[in-house]
Amino acid sequence: MNINRLQDDPHVGLADWLLRGIGQVVFQNNPLSGAVILFALFFNSWVYGAAAIFGVTVSTLTAIVLKADRGLIKAGLFGFNGALVALCLVAFTSADFRTGAVPSPLMTVYIGCGAAFSTIVMQSMATLLAPHRVAPLTGPFVLVGWLFLFAVLKFAHIDAGPLAKPVSPEDYEAIAAYSLPTWYMGIGNAIGQIFFQDNWISGYLILLGIALHSRISAGMAVLGAAVAAATAVISGGPEGAIRDGLFGYNAALTAIALGGFFLVLNRASFFYAVFGAIISTWLWASVAIFLGPIGMPVLTSSFVLVTWMMLLGQYGFAALIPVEPANADSPERTLRASKLAARGTSQQRGHTGSAQDAP
Amino acid sequence: MNINRLQDDPHVGLADWLLRGIGQVVFQNNPLSGAVILFALFFNSWVYGAAAIFGVTVSTLTAIVLKADRGLIKAGLFGFNGALVALCLVAFTSADFRTGAVPSPLMTVYIGCGAAFSTIVMQSMATLLAPHRVAPLTGPFVLVGWLFLFAVLKFAHIDAGPLAKPVSPEDYEAIAAYSLPTWYMGIGNAIGQIFFQDNWISGYLILLGIALHSRISAGMAVLGAAVAAATAVISGGPEGAIRDGLFGYNAALTAIALGGFFLVLNRASFFYAVFGAIISTWLWASVAIFLGPIGMPVLTSSFVLVTWMMLLGQYGFAALIPVEPANADSPERTLRASKLAARGTSQQRGHTGSAQDAP
Amino acid sequence: MNINRLQDDPHVGLADWLLRGIGQVVFQNNPLSGAVILFALFFNSWVYGAAAIFGVTVSTLTAIVLKADRGLIKAGLFGFNGALVALCLVAFTSADFRTGAVPSPLMTVYIGCGAAFSTIVMQSMATLLAPHRVAPLTGPFVLVGWLFLFAVLKFAHIDAGPLAKPVSPEDYEAIAAYSLPTWYMGIGNAIGQIFFQDNWISGYLILLGIALHSRISAGMAVLGAAVAAATAVISGGPEGAIRDGLFGYNAALTAIALGGFFLVLNRASFFYAVFGAIISTWLWASVAIFLGPIGMPVLTSSFVLVTWMMLLGQYGFAALIPVEPANADSPERTLRASKLAARGTSQQRGHTGSAQDAP
Repeated sequence: MNINRLQDDPHVGLADWLLRGIGQVVFQNNPLSGAVILFALFFNSWVYGAAAIFGVTVSTLTAIVLKADRGLIKAGLFGFNGALVALCLVAFTSADFRTGAVPSPLMTVYIGCGAAFSTIVMQSMATLLAPHRVAPLTGPFVLVGWLFLFAVLKFAHIDAGPLAKPVSPEDYEAIAAYSLPTWYMGIGNAIGQIFFQDNWISGYLILLGIALHSRISAGMAVLGAAVAAATAVISGGPEGAIRDGLFGYNAALTAIALGGFFLVLNRASFFYAVFGAIISTWLWASVAIFLGPIGMPVLTSSFVLVTWMMLLGQYGFAALIPVEPANADSPERTLRASKLAARGTSQQRGHTGSAQDAP
Repeated sequence: MNINRLQDDPHVGLADWLLRGIGQVVFQNNPLSGAVILFALFFNSWVYGAAAIFGVTVSTLTAIVLKADRGLIKAGLFGFNGALVALCLVAFTSADFRTGAVPSPLMTVYIGCGAAFSTIVMQSMATLLAPHRVAPLTGPFVLVGWLFLFAVLKFAHIDAGPLAKPVSPEDYEAIAAYSLPTWYMGIGNAIGQIFFQDNWISGYLILLGIALHSRISAGMAVLGAAVAAATAVISGGPEGAIRDGLFGYNAALTAIALGGFFLVLNRASFFYAVFGAIISTWLWASVAIFLGPIGMPVLTSSFVLVTWMMLLGQYGFAALIPVEPANADSPERTLRASKLAARGTSQQRGHTGSAQDAP
Repeated sequence: MNINRLQDDPHVGLADWLLRGIGQVVFQNNPLSGAVILFALFFNSWVYGAAAIFGVTVSTLTAIVLKADRGLIKAGLFGFNGALVALCLVAFTSADFRTGAVPSPLMTVYIGCGAAFSTIVMQSMATLLAPHRVAPLTGPFVLVGWLFLFAVLKFAHIDAGPLAKPVSPEDYEAIAAYSLPTWYMGIGNAIGQIFFQDNWISGYLILLGIALHSRISAGMAVLGAAVAAATAVISGGPEGAIRDGLFGYNAALTAIALGGFFLVLNRASFFYAVFGAIISTWLWASVAIFLGPIGMPVLTSSFVLVTWMMLLGQYGFAALIPVEPANADSPERTLRASKLAARGTSQQRGHTGSAQDAP
């Protein structure tokens, strides 16, 4: 396959791995997807684009220095949490969340240490989850993000700016009526918020990046964000928060993960994914209230929690057909392999070591 | 055995499983126990009786749809957490905690989703705990209960009523003197609070339901509640909280679990259970303070935490004789089997797949 | 070896195990180290010396009564968490943190129960971590310490004194300039704070105790504390908190654990340990802010969290050479064994069952 042509190239291999790392945030083990998503970040703000490159590079190099599994490094699996850590720390220490600000030299070292630590946490979570054949997802990012955000407040030299309040529905007045932009901006923003981009056009560009590798995953991302918006509208959530995509970014990730990626797509797993998106939406609100008193953002914790809970027990539910993390690449490939296997031919897909695999 | 006659009946089998689900809240894999406990709930308030039926039905049906292990479903093990989730969400969203209020249609859907999610969490926790041969206990209920209680606050359309404050000893003035009713009402209420019933007569009816299946477990429930009350009195806990059974419901559950159910009853495990009841009492207070700032009730978290901690390491303590969760049915059966085995006859009990078994 | 002469003595064996228990707080399976450390506590305050003896005795006897693994008991591994629990509960319920106060009879029973419970939690955590060949460290102490500190507030009869506020950098004014005493007192105090001793001379006495068994570990303790002070100075942490050793006690423990004890000391693990000390320093601040609203001290939680995270994934990083917890005794012995093995001679060290081993 030509998208894997450069992965083993001695000269540009690293660049390929880093782009895959950016793609892996949304489960896309594909350098083209990563490139399009990176463009979407630069489209919104060059600061965020640079932060993502910095984070994915530091965490991937850390994995190389520590001599982690080569296959996982090449699939970008030691990079995506580092990219998110960098984006997160830039976002919540900038005066203007929307555009981000260039961090100070000391803050840059701090961000680099966070990205490097995410690689270590990735390996640890993978070790803990390996017996249950469940991937760490963005769990390392959530843990490192929380721990590193708090510490920022303690040190006078690190200029944290007005540390953004947890983005929570309570900050919105629940007066505005729901309208068409609530929906199309809400869905775009939800996909953008996965990367801390408060820009709905960037969100649709990211969606394009996903679709380059898997149209089913792109569809699931839209479905998850739409289900989240609908859940919030029915429950009377504030219009502004829905339009900003806050209810939807966790639900979009949950829908991608359960809708064909870690479970073979069939009727049962489709409804399982929709149910997961609804639960993720509610739990986003729940975690936001829980974290309120300590002023911490939710990040993607509700996605991680719900998806872990819905996958850990997967082998106990005969209605679901689990996909080994090591074999999860795209819903389309999984479906083809599953059909081939059903036809009685032996399964011919190799072990691709891809996509948020548990090392 | 005649109590198992209806478990495989194609017509009334489901009703048998649901009643067992209600019994399993207090470790009783027995439809008669479940029926008596259900009567105790209706005796206090028909709303709670109906909520328990709704919760246990939704979570058991979810397990059937997802094709979970049939033996576990028939033993009611996918039902008891759902029943508790429904009771909890009704209790803490009602204007009057004591009688409960009929939830709105939207809230009913929400409660149903919580009960369904408890089935998924049950399977996940069972998977995590299986290598250590420890049961999930009411862990799924505690997690889902907390997550779903919080989210209620975020949505305007769900009318939450005055969301009950965490029932905590700080709400009581520590003036009243301890008297006889402190004790007999405190013990009854403690057993009632397991099912959110603030009614000491219901508590004793529930105790009767337990005694129908196991007199040792019923004795342990009373012992645990009494030890809790004594611990609180010696430590100077507020009289009103003791009388309301707040210190005792976790201790009663811990005493049942450790006193003959998951450990063969002997002198060592008896004192182990009493020690566990004392620790559960203190930790109830501890968790209540911890959760105070975010306004969340303790639920049965101190029981779950203490019992997990006291069972996870059981194979490392030669003074204790562990019972496999799959074989745990009642202290009496365990004692008989243990004596038979000691006499040199081979152990003749079948695998009964019962009682808060790890799937 | 003569330091092990008394370990199997029927008369003074228990005293040997208890002294090892005190040494194991800082990873020293050596009764002489324990004796020197105990002297350091008495040097600061006889109350703390007595509290440590009480805690280590109760928790070790609990392990004996429950018939835990004899080898682990003899290595002091069921004692060190109990000693810390007792020191912690005395420290935070005394009017004067520095000298401590004799607890009331009821409080003494409470402390004893906490120390006994730490033995049960030790066995449980060891069971959970065993598959990953990682030791529980002071995790049992942190959990029991938090749970038992909270409950103290709830009971009127237990006279808690002015429960000390979490020792946090926010309590210091960030005006004082950094000077020489910031450094030598800060490093001494950091080592003292591991045992709740706010006395830098006691800290250096403890360091002497460590050096009796392992000069590398003593060096790592100083390095960790110095790295922490430097990290705090560069980040602009308050001078008073640095001088009091608050930033450093977690970092010192992390440096000992990663610098030769659980990883063979080489260039990679040296930098890994330094990185861990830096992260522990930041996370100490992070956890302090997190716990601020509920008024709970950090204890050694940042050491435990960082070290677990850095060891759980150790088998996935080929640049590191893990040491089985059961074989970890001192960096020097590990290095010798590693060199012997490299020379092609078979490894001749026996299984010593020592040093924060996972039972």
